[in-house]
Parts: sequence; C-alpha cells; structure tokens
Amino acid sequence: MKALVFDGSLHLEEIDLPEPLQNEALISVRLAGICNTDLEVIKGYMGFSGVLGHEFVGVVDLCNDETLIRKKIVGEINVACGACEYCMNGMKKHCSDLSVIGINGHNGCFAEYIVLPIDNLHLVPETVPDEEAIFVEPLAAAYHVFETVWVKPSSRVLIIGDGKLGLLISMAASSLGIEHTLVGRHPERFAMLDSNVNTISSNGQTNLKGYYDIVIEATGNEQGMVLALSAVRATGTIVLKSTYSHVPNVDLSKVAVNELKIVGSRCGRFEDAIRSLEKKSVKPEQLVDRIFPFDKALEAIDYAPGHLKVLLRM
Amino acid sequence: MKALVFDGSLHLEEIDLPEPLQNEALISVRLAGICNTDLEVIKGYMGFSGVLGHEFVGVVDLCNDETLIRKKIVGEINVACGACEYCMNGMKKHCSDLSVIGINGHNGCFAEYIVLPIDNLHLVPETVPDEEAIFVEPLAAAYHVFETVWVKPSSRVLIIGDGKLGLLISMAASSLGIEHTLVGRHPERFAMLDSNVNTISSNGQTNLKGYYDIVIEATGNEQGMVLALSAVRATGTIVLKSTYSHVPNVDLSKVAVNELKIVGSRCGRFEDAIRSLEKKSVKPEQLVDRIFPFDKALEAIDYAPGHLKVLLRM
Repeated sequence: MKALVFDGSLHLEEIDLPEPLQNEALISVRLAGICNTDLEVIKGYMGFSGVLGHEFVGVVDLCNDETLIRKKIVGEINVACGACEYCMNGMKKHCSDLSVIGINGHNGCFAEYIVLPIDNLHLVPETVPDEEAIFVEPLAAAYHVFETVWVKPSSRVLIIGDGKLGLLISMAASSLGIEHTLVGRHPERFAMLDSNVNTISSNGQTNLKGYYDIVIEATGNEQGMVLALSAVRATGTIVLKSTYSHVPNVDLSKVAVNELKIVGSRCGRFEDAIRSLEKKSVKPEQLVDRIFPFDKALEAIDYAPGHLKVLLRM
Repeated sequence: MKALVFDGSLHLEEIDLPEPLQNEALISVRLAGICNTDLEVIKGYMGFSGVLGHEFVGVVDLCNDETLIRKKIVGEINVACGACEYCMNGMKKHCSDLSVIGINGHNGCFAEYIVLPIDNLHLVPETVPDEEAIFVEPLAAAYHVFETVWVKPSSRVLIIGDGKLGLLISMAASSLGIEHTLVGRHPERFAMLDSNVNTISSNGQTNLKGYYDIVIEATGNEQGMVLALSAVRATGTIVLKSTYSHVPNVDLSKVAVNELKIVGSRCGRFEDAIRSLEKKSVKPEQLVDRIFPFDKALEAIDYAPGHLKVLLRM
C-alpha cells in the first residue's frame, strides 16, 4: 500500500499492508487531515519514525466484529496497554506504555490502510459527511477544554489564536452556550464564528491586561503564552492546548505572585464531537482550506503551514 | 530612627520617624526576619526602593484604637486600596493598586518603627514568644498551599526543597495530618520535621518519576521546577510557591501532553498561623539560625544566603 513515511525525511512509498491481530481492525482510510502536530513531528517532536498522521475517516475492511465491516468510522489516536495504573483508572490517554498513532510508536493514517484496536473505533452516522467527520479528533480536543476548566456563568473567557484549534474551541464554546472573546491575527476568519463571539484583531492596540478569568492559549507560540499571562486576572486560569516542539520561555514568577492556575488539556471524548456534528451544532467543514489527492501528499505538507485545514483524499 | 534602606545599594541610616494617618498605627519593631524575597529584592526583584523587610513582631505605640496600644502584634504585608474590584471581592492581596511592605511601594520593617493600616494588624497571644511569632507571615504562606490545592486522603504529596519555606510547608502539612515526602539537599535538617515525614536526600539517585499527585515546588530554582515536572504524575498538580527574580526555563509542553495543573500560591491567612503557634502544633523556632542586633543588619544580610532563618533584634 501507499504510505507517507517519516524517518528523518518524508517519503511517499510502498509498504506492506498491515495485518490486524485478534482485537484489531484493518481500516481503509478515505480522508485524512494534516494537523499542526504533524508539522511538529516533522521538526522532531517525539522523535517519531513511521507512517505519519492521526486524523482520519475510514471504513472497516477486516475485523472479528462482523457488525463493523463496511461501517464508516473514526479512530481514537491513543493506543493504551490496558493494564497499567492509568489504564485501570480509566485514564488510557495517560497510559504508561502509550502509543499514539502517527506521533509515538504506532503507524499513522497517512496511508491507504491503517490497523487499530477495535476499542479505538467510533461509528460515524452516515448523515455526517467525511469532510465534517474528519474534525472529530480535533473537535473532541476542543470540547475537552471545557472538561478541563470550570466555566461559570460569570466567567470572562478569552481564546488566543485563530488557527484551526482556536476556531474549533470557539465553535465548541458557542455550541455549549459559553460567551467568549477570541483574539487572532486573521480577522477574515472571524466570519466563521458564531455572531455572538466578541472578536479582537491582535494587530490593534487592545488592552487585555488582567481582565479574563479563563484564557485558552491555542497558538502554540511563545507570544501567545506571553499574551495569556498578561490577559489573565489574578487567581485566573490559563488553559494550555498546544504541543510545542521547543520550550517557550515564559516568566513563571507571575504564576506564584498572581496565584494563577495553568492547566494542560489534550485529547477529548470522540462521543461528544460526533454528537455535536450529528446535531449540526458545530460546522467545522468551513475550516477546510484545500483537499489534495494522496499522491500529492508531499505537496500538501508543504502547503499546510499557515493555512487552515488541509486534507488528503485516499 | 534607624532603618535599613535599599536604593540600588543597601545602607543602615537615620531617617525621619513615619507619622500614622487616621487609620494607621505606629509600631515599634522588636524582631524582624530576613526572607529569601528580601535577598531577591536586593538583586532587583520588583525594582523596589525604600526600607527593606516584611516579617516582624512589634508593639503598637500610637493609633486611634486605644485597645491596641502596647499590644504585641504582627502585620499583614499587603496594603490594599480597599476600593478596586479585587478588594471588593475580598481578594485584597491581589488589589489593583497594591503596595507590599518592603517589596513594592511601602516602607518595610527593617527599622525601629513602621507605620501600617490598623486593618493589617493581628494580635499575638503573650504565650507565643517573639521567636515563634516572627514566623507568622511565612507560616501563613505555608498553610495557604493547602487552601490552594485539594489534598485528598489518597493524594501522594511531595515537597521539593528543605529551605525555610519547604520546612515550614512540611510542618504545616504535618499539623494538618497530611502524609508527605520531602526531598532536599540538607539531610541534617530532616530531624526538625515530624517523624512521619518520608525524607529523601536529593544527592541519592532516587527515582521520583511520575509518582506524585501533588508536588510543591519550594526551592525557587530551575532545577526544582525540572524535578517537579518529572516527579508529578499525569493530570497531577504542581504548586509554585517561590518568587523568582529570573525566568526559569522549563519545558511547558509536558503541561499540555500530561494534562498537568500548575497552581501559584502566595500569602495566607495570619489567623491560621497564629492559631497553630498558640496550640504549639508547629514549632518553627528551631529554624532560627542566628539573631543579629539591628546595628549589624548589613552583616546579617550578607550571612543570610544559604542559612535558615536569620533575625534582626531592634
């Protein structure tokens, strides 16, 4: 099968078709999404080597559970051992022996086929098109912000960043009825958001100092974290959503003096994202910038930085 | 009166006796404590200029409330405006127009007299000697850790650092019945702690990786924060107690990936510290390394780094 392999450099090459074990499924990938984390992996994040990619929509080709065959599915990216203390406590994404598809120790989905444990699969209703379903994984991560931090009715909420992640978090917040402000560098993107969102173009000389109870940092760059630390009020909370391949150099003395909370947030529950797509309470398809045929995967990777969602059609 | 003044350099000099306003008291300082924050101020922290010092025990000499005259008191270090949004919400230490004695915009207590708002004063029972009462401010900060983070009965708690702050936090934890481990570089100090404390000498090759639910960083140095990030388990909490004059360079990507919480904690309630001293449930006097006469204040400041509590007797 054809696969996009990273082993220090990136190649589109023929590799062996993977074979599913007892509790695994062979999935034919239909559509895959390029995420900023993929671009970080190419820069060396996690020291990964193998088939890249972790966002996909596919169809089950082969597995022991016959009810799944030919069904449209998306797949959770964390492959857990099922036996460690974290797994036993229902925290599989923090498994001590964790693999993450396309990121850490498990081949990813930028390929014609992928093998995943059946436990990782979620059925997608046929009413949800592939171009919406492809957002299940990042949308689940967006919803997870609001599992991580308690937004009270009176909370003043700021989202920093109008990249894919920031926009998805804003959409998730709106669908949950959470009033918020989004600050970003691309005012042309603000039209995608709910009309109730208060938007701020970061080129303006806006004074955000110490106003917000909850600041969600979704830029992944150091300036975003600096802005978060200045925008949060004393005793407020900063939610860190991004993965960084480098170390942001931020002044943590403010954390003690202003008694801030910094809270990390990663993957979320696929069920929540699938349900909201089914109800059409979020419409992420508008984030799709361009769809490349899989043959042009290398071109797509080159194109992705600075653009919204770039997809690969297998 | 004699005062230890910092204005870029440090002098013991004669300055005018301060005059109390309507709601203020003139306090005769009897004993003052040198804190690491004082040493940070001398290195430039907060850009402070004026009389140094914020830990003291004194006697009220002059004020409108006659019941206070001649009484032994300690004083809260935050001087709030009383009118801003934070003050209105009972968060005076985060006042938008805050002064902090000896640290930010208000003369400190390394002087024969200090003026403070009456609201800042707390009576000290005569049964608590000055050499214990001098610890009210840092002990209150130590107790505040356990107002900041919820320690469950099953929580695995690690305190990093066996300086004054780390030892006081350990004493506070023991008095609250909180089982914990303390890691530090001075095993000779461990005898001061409750015999139930599990102590680890950091020179040993101890494996702390990912074990603790709650890690309290009380070293104020970068290595302490690096150890905290390796010792905390996924979804665990790091409490930052220290003030840093520089920026610790730590890898925040772990915060998102492991869904950590970093929580800042500063000053605490004096009432809690005074009550525990009165009940003798903590005995911080053993932290006193040396008491200098105030005339030797400069010598005391030179001596303080690397030693436990150094006091000035006026």
